[in-house]
Amino acid sequence: MLEQGRHGLAHILAKAITELFDDAKLAIGPVIDTGFYYDFDLPASITEADFKAIEAKMSEILKRREAFMRKELSKPEALELFKDNAYKLELIEDLPEDEIISVYYTGDDFCDLCRGPHVENSQELFGWAFKVQSVTGAYWRGDASRKMLQRVYCYAFPNKAELKAHIAAFEEALKRDHNKLGRSLELFATADVIGQGLPVLLPKGAMIVRTLQRFVEDEEQRRGYQQTMTPIMAKRELYKISTHWDHYRDGMFVLGNPEKFDDESEEILALRPMTCPFQFQAYLNKTRSYRDLPLRYNETAKLFRNEASGEMHGLIRVRQFTLAEGHIACRPDQLEAEFAGCLDLAKHMLQAIGLYEDVWFRFSKWDATNREKYIGDAAQWEAVQGVMRKILDDLEVNYIEADGEAAFYGPKLDIQAKNVFGKEDTIITIQIDFQLAERFGMEYVDSDGEKKYPFVIHRSSIGCYERTLALLIEKYAGKFPFWLSPLQVGVVPVREEHDQYADEIAQQLCAAGVRVQVDHSDGTMGNKIKGFRKELVPYIVIVGDAEQQSGTISLRVRTGVQANNIAFADFLVACHNMTENHKLELIEQFNNQ
Amino acid sequence: MLEQGRHGLAHILAKAITELFDDAKLAIGPVIDTGFYYDFDLPASITEADFKAIEAKMSEILKRREAFMRKELSKPEALELFKDNAYKLELIEDLPEDEIISVYYTGDDFCDLCRGPHVENSQELFGWAFKVQSVTGAYWRGDASRKMLQRVYCYAFPNKAELKAHIAAFEEALKRDHNKLGRSLELFATADVIGQGLPVLLPKGAMIVRTLQRFVEDEEQRRGYQQTMTPIMAKRELYKISTHWDHYRDGMFVLGNPEKFDDESEEILALRPMTCPFQFQAYLNKTRSYRDLPLRYNETAKLFRNEASGEMHGLIRVRQFTLAEGHIACRPDQLEAEFAGCLDLAKHMLQAIGLYEDVWFRFSKWDATNREKYIGDAAQWEAVQGVMRKILDDLEVNYIEADGEAAFYGPKLDIQAKNVFGKEDTIITIQIDFQLAERFGMEYVDSDGEKKYPFVIHRSSIGCYERTLALLIEKYAGKFPFWLSPLQVGVVPVREEHDQYADEIAQQLCAAGVRVQVDHSDGTMGNKIKGFRKELVPYIVIVGDAEQQSGTISLRVRTGVQANNIAFADFLVACHNMTENHKLELIEQFNNQ
Repeated sequence: MLEQGRHGLAHILAKAITELFDDAKLAIGPVIDTGFYYDFDLPASITEADFKAIEAKMSEILKRREAFMRKELSKPEALELFKDNAYKLELIEDLPEDEIISVYYTGDDFCDLCRGPHVENSQELFGWAFKVQSVTGAYWRGDASRKMLQRVYCYAFPNKAELKAHIAAFEEALKRDHNKLGRSLELFATADVIGQGLPVLLPKGAMIVRTLQRFVEDEEQRRGYQQTMTPIMAKRELYKISTHWDHYRDGMFVLGNPEKFDDESEEILALRPMTCPFQFQAYLNKTRSYRDLPLRYNETAKLFRNEASGEMHGLIRVRQFTLAEGHIACRPDQLEAEFAGCLDLAKHMLQAIGLYEDVWFRFSKWDATNREKYIGDAAQWEAVQGVMRKILDDLEVNYIEADGEAAFYGPKLDIQAKNVFGKEDTIITIQIDFQLAERFGMEYVDSDGEKKYPFVIHRSSIGCYERTLALLIEKYAGKFPFWLSPLQVGVVPVREEHDQYADEIAQQLCAAGVRVQVDHSDGTMGNKIKGFRKELVPYIVIVGDAEQQSGTISLRVRTGVQANNIAFADFLVACHNMTENHKLELIEQFNNQ
Repeated sequence: MLEQGRHGLAHILAKAITELFDDAKLAIGPVIDTGFYYDFDLPASITEADFKAIEAKMSEILKRREAFMRKELSKPEALELFKDNAYKLELIEDLPEDEIISVYYTGDDFCDLCRGPHVENSQELFGWAFKVQSVTGAYWRGDASRKMLQRVYCYAFPNKAELKAHIAAFEEALKRDHNKLGRSLELFATADVIGQGLPVLLPKGAMIVRTLQRFVEDEEQRRGYQQTMTPIMAKRELYKISTHWDHYRDGMFVLGNPEKFDDESEEILALRPMTCPFQFQAYLNKTRSYRDLPLRYNETAKLFRNEASGEMHGLIRVRQFTLAEGHIACRPDQLEAEFAGCLDLAKHMLQAIGLYEDVWFRFSKWDATNREKYIGDAAQWEAVQGVMRKILDDLEVNYIEADGEAAFYGPKLDIQAKNVFGKEDTIITIQIDFQLAERFGMEYVDSDGEKKYPFVIHRSSIGCYERTLALLIEKYAGKFPFWLSPLQVGVVPVREEHDQYADEIAQQLCAAGVRVQVDHSDGTMGNKIKGFRKELVPYIVIVGDAEQQSGTISLRVRTGVQANNIAFADFLVACHNMTENHKLELIEQFNNQ
C-alpha cells in the first residue's frame, strides 16, 4: 500500500508539472524510502520558490477525483503513443518485441508509461501527506555523457503524523550529519585552495584519529602483527604485477604525462590505491619457511583514490584516506583460524567504539557473468568461495550475500554500515586472496621441502579512520565516549583565587594522561561552563572555596548529572577506568570505585 | 704541509696516467679530506685491475727525483700551451685577461695548470703513503649535460701509519653505514619495482620510527602544541600563494599532463614538498585574536621531493619522507620566547636520542647577490636577519654563518650533522618567516583592534624520521639505546620444561610495555643466545632450573656483562627506568634500584 500510494502520487506530481510548466518531458519517477522522485526534462528551472505551487497543484488534481485507468498496448502502439517523448521511447525500445505494455491514465489528459498497480481513484490518496523536498540535477540513466534532467524529490507518507515524524527524524539526522557537525565542532575543515575530497583534520579531529590509531596499533601488536611503514607511491611496474594498472587505473593518481603511460622507457610513478604490493615487499625481504607462517603485517596506511567530483562527501568519500591496513600470509591449514582472528579483531574494535550494534555482514562474491573484472579462473573462484562460505558458516556469521562485490583477486566479507542519511558503505573488509602471492613470487618452503604460495588475507581492523570518525560523529552527535573525546575535562575556577588549585587539579589529570584544559579567561563562571558545554566536554570540574578547602571537586557531567563533594582521587580512578576499558558511557557515580 | 703533499701527489698521479694510458686529457685534481682525486678524459676505462700498476708507476715517477718547477705565463701564453686540452682551456678562459697564470712542471715532459705552492722536489714525498681508492664517473664541472669523466680517488697521508689508521677507521665507518647495516639488521629494504628513494621500513625499522613519533608527539603536546593531520597534496593554486609553484616546482611531484600546468581551467594537483600552507588552513579556520597567540601546530607530516637519481642515498636522501613538522604563529613580542622554545625542544630531542654532542649550528642567511631566489625586499631581509642574530646571541647559540642557505621566505637556524662518510646534512631547522602569513591572509586582531599578521616560525623538533633513523644506526652501529631497540628483551628457556616460566616472564614484560620475544624453537641454548646477539638485542634473559625455582633470571647484557640471580622485579624496574628516562646506556647493575 505504501508503495502504491507513493507511486500514485508520483503520477500526480508529473501531471502537476505538465500543467504548471510548458514543454515538460517526463523521464522516470520511482518510489524511494521516504516518498518518490521524478526526473523531468524542462526548459524552465524549478526552484524552491515553485514548491508551494507544485504542492497546491497536486492537491487540486487529487480533488478532481480522477480514476487511475490502466490500458494495455502492443510495443508499436506504445511507441506511437509516446512518439513525442524521447525518454519514454528509449525505455519502450528496450522492452522485448512481444511485451504487453501498460500505461495509466489519470483523467483523459494525462497518461504515463507504468507497470502499476495503482489505486482505483485519486480520492483514495486524500489522506496522504506529501511535501516537495528538493530539486537536484540528475543525468538521464545516470550517464554523465547524457542530458542533465531536473529531479524533484517528494516526501510521501500515508498521513500527516508519519510525515511529521519523518521530517523530525530527518532534521535530527541533519544535526548529526558529520559534514556539518564535524565542522562546527572544529574536528575538520576543507579549503577550496587545497581541493575537493582532501579534508584537513583540525587538532580536535586529529586527536580522535591519533587516539584510535594508537589503540589499533597497540592491539594489533598484542595480536602478533608486525607494523610496516611503506611508501605511498611506486613505479607503474609494481601495479602491473598486482594488475591494478589494468583493473584500477582510472581510480588512481598517476604522475607524469598521460601520453607516456605506455612508454616503457619513462619512469611512471602512481599513488597507491592499496597497500598490498608494498607490504608484500616485507615478506619478500627474505626466504620464508612454513614455520614462519602466519606472518601478520599491519600498517597505518595512507591511500589515494581519484574519486569523481560528484562522489565526494565529507569524511566518508575522499581522495586521500588512512586505512588500518593489514595482510596475513598463511598456510592453507591456518586460513580458517587467521580469518577468525581477523573477524574477532574487527568485532573488538567495533565494540570499543560502540558501532558493533549498527553493522551487518555481507559475503561479497564475484560475478561469473562479468569475468573480465576478475583474475583467476571460474573453478578457482568457486573453490575459494566455497572455502570462505564454510569458514563463515563455521564461525556462525550471520551474513547476506552479494554477487559482483568481490575484489578482483578474491571474495570478501564486508562489514557494512549506514550514515545518518541511510547511505550504505563498507567500513571494514576481510578478503581471501588466492592469486597475488603467486603473481609476486611470495614463496615459502613447506615441511615437505616444496616451494608453495601462501594464502593472503587482506583485512582492515577498524576501517578507514576518516570514515570511522564520520560515523562516530553521527553516532554520538559529537558526544564522544570519554576515551575518544578530544578534550576530556574542562576545569573552571570560580574566582581568580582558585586558579592555583585549578592548575594543580589539571596537572594531576594531565600527568595521568587525561586531556584537560583550565579556563583562565576573565569570563564569568557561567560563561566558562557554557563554553565547555558547547564543546561537548564530558566532564566540567568546578573548583571554588569549598572544593579548595576540602580538596574535592564539583562536577557537571555531560549527561546533565551534577555531583558535588567528589574526592579528586575517585574522579581520577574513574577517568583511568573509562580509558583503560574503552567505556562508552560516562561514569556518574564516584563513591563506589 | 698535508695539502702540499697531497697536491704534489695529484700531479704525480696525473703524470702516471698520461704515461700509462694513451690520449689522456687532464681535467681537475683537488685535495680532499683523505687525499685527493683527479678527473680524466680517457678513451680507455680505468678499473680496479689497474690500481696496482698506477701505484707502481707513481712510485717509479717519484724515484726520478724530479723538481716541481713553477713557470708563470700570460693568459695568451697559457691558452697556447694547453691548446690540445679543452678542459684546461675552459678553466683558463674563465680567468681575467691580465691574470698571471702559473703552471708546474714535473720533469720536462709533464706540466699542469696549478696555483701551487709545491714541494721543491718529488723526493720530499718519498715517505708519503698513498693508495688508489676507487674510480667513479663524474660530470665535467658537475653538469649532467656535459661529458662524464673518470674520477680516480687516492688516499694520501704523510706516512704509512696514518694511512693504515685512516683505512681502519674508514672500514669501521663502512660497518656502521646505515645503508648496509640498516638492511642487514632488517630495519629497511628497497625494491626496484617500487623505485629509487622510496624505502620500505620493515617491522624493526618501523618500530623505532613509531617509538620516536609517539615520543615527539607526546612531548610536543606537553609543550602546548596542537596536532593536525593535513592532506599530502593540493591544487596548484595553493602553491602559487606560497610561491612554491614559482620557486620550487622542479623539486615537486606534479600530477597530470605537464602541457596543462599553465592551463587555469584544469585541476592540477601536486604532492607537497612542505606542510606550511596546509597547516595554515587550521589557523585560517576561524578568526584569531592576540589572546589566541602563540598558536603552535605540529604534525607527523609526509613530504615529497623529486630528487635527482644521483642524489638519493639510503634513508638520508629520499623522495618521500616524514618530518616532525610544526608551525608557530606568534606576535612580535613573543618571537624570541617561541624561538627559544623551539631550540630547547630540539635540544631535548637530540639529547634523548644521544645525537646532541654530534651536531653544530648554522645561521643560514640569504644571498643578497641572488635576489630572485627570495621573496621580500632587502630592507626586510636585513631587519629580520638582525632580529634572528639578536635572538641567537641572546640565547648564546654557538653558530657558524652561511650566506645563501636561507629559505626563500626567511632566515634559518640549521642544526647540522655528518654521516659516517663525513657528508654533512641539515637534520633540524628553525626558521623565521615574516612573509607567508600575509600572503595567506592569516590575520589576528591585536589588542588595539587592528588586524595584523603574525610571525610564523617553521620548525622541526627531531627532523625527518628516516634521516634520524639513519643517523641513529650509524651512531650506535645498530646497538640502539634500550628505549629505541625494536626488540628489547630476548628470552631463552634452557630446556623445554622451562618454556612455561619463560612465557610468564615474557607476559609480565609485555604487560609492562617491553618488547619481548621468547625463542621456542628447537635449537640449542647456545644457538638461541647467538640468534638474539646477532640481532643486537639489549638483554637476553636465560631461564633454567635455578631461575625457575628461585623466581629469578639470568641476564646477558649486550655490553658483554653477565648477571645471574637477578630478582625479576628489579629487572622490570630497570626496563621501566631506561624507557621513562630515555637512558642511552644499558643498566648493568640490578641490585640497587
